[in-house]
Amino acid sequence: MIHLSKKAIRTLPSRHKANLVNTVSGYKSANLIASKSKDGTTNVAIFNSVIHLGSNPALLGFVLRPLTVERHTYDNIKASSTYTINAVTEEIYKRAHATSAKYRKDESEFTKTGLTESYQGDFPSPFVKESPIQIGCSYVNEYEIQENGCILMVGAIEDIYIKESVLLDDFWAKLDEANLVSIVGLDGYAKPKITDRLSYAKPDETLESLIHGAQKSESSH
Amino acid sequence: MIHLSKKAIRTLPSRHKANLVNTVSGYKSANLIASKSKDGTTNVAIFNSVIHLGSNPALLGFVLRPLTVERHTYDNIKASSTYTINAVTEEIYKRAHATSAKYRKDESEFTKTGLTESYQGDFPSPFVKESPIQIGCSYVNEYEIQENGCILMVGAIEDIYIKESVLLDDFWAKLDEANLVSIVGLDGYAKPKITDRLSYAKPDETLESLIHGAQKSESSH
Repeated sequence: MIHLSKKAIRTLPSRHKANLVNTVSGYKSANLIASKSKDGTTNVAIFNSVIHLGSNPALLGFVLRPLTVERHTYDNIKASSTYTINAVTEEIYKRAHATSAKYRKDESEFTKTGLTESYQGDFPSPFVKESPIQIGCSYVNEYEIQENGCILMVGAIEDIYIKESVLLDDFWAKLDEANLVSIVGLDGYAKPKITDRLSYAKPDETLESLIHGAQKSESSH
Repeated sequence: MIHLSKKAIRTLPSRHKANLVNTVSGYKSANLIASKSKDGTTNVAIFNSVIHLGSNPALLGFVLRPLTVERHTYDNIKASSTYTINAVTEEIYKRAHATSAKYRKDESEFTKTGLTESYQGDFPSPFVKESPIQIGCSYVNEYEIQENGCILMVGAIEDIYIKESVLLDDFWAKLDEANLVSIVGLDGYAKPKITDRLSYAKPDETLESLIHGAQKSESSH
């Protein structure tokens, strides 16, 4: 094992430090957050920080970098109170990554990257048409992380649109059925394959695999 | 596409609702958070909510469920001010999942699940010996999500121990080299394979693949 102390990490060149700290905490979710400005310009941006906050009510969070530079996503959400979260697949990960370029506020990343904006019902924010899981959210609250100015945005799920083949009978979304990718650090993309589902863990009971054929035993240690 | 409205989601049976809301936001990181109580009992618990909050200083966050029931991880972190975050691999995912059973406070999940506690330098919290990426953290702050009582815990990275073969020259951790898994919902495990790294995105410039051989073009649309 290589040991990197706090001091060693602090003194790394900034790109190396960003690589290290962004990768070591594991695979992250890959989502496109889409919104619309007051004057009607749409925006779409890739995020690797969408997290589950609660099921009842259904709340999702995501982290925004400090507002010291222009943050179109933040401004649009504050103006319209709605936004959408759209899954990134193997088919669109390059276009999704391209949304991270610093486009002007009057330019839409949809147009610039070749993603397609679409609308569902009377929901005001654009969805990403290519995405097999599209979630309409309303702004609920925000929490500023005092330590560095990041903001945890909290939103309520208003609508979920999901490709029929992805949703199992027990409402579990089989993400690999729709070729979703996950993110490593700021620039890596991975293709996961779901290998197992395990039973609810109870003290001193053996776990069971809920997926037929995924019963291979763990390697001994 | 299947449409699930807010009302349709709210009226789902609770297990189905939990499946849906926990899976639709994508693949999550799989980590074991380990800590030690005042009286010396070690604790280790699986989390799918570890997120990156900043590189300079290096900060990681994770979400704890409401404190309305006993939360050993929270109590231990508040008592000792330190904890560790340890990557979950294909070799230990079943033992990692088993830590979610409700063991008593005087029982160590290390003993109960067959994971091995280990210590590095003079860091007071236990690490998970089987993990190829082990991160020692100190408590920095906590933010209560008023909407449902969840807590975002914020910690500073004090030490990183990482398997040598995982760390590339530019300090990017190649997570599939160490067989890390990712989590789907509350019970699913996936094995990702890193397929690409993309160049920093700039307006109107074409992205380049940083991994030799990953140059396959995106499917047209």
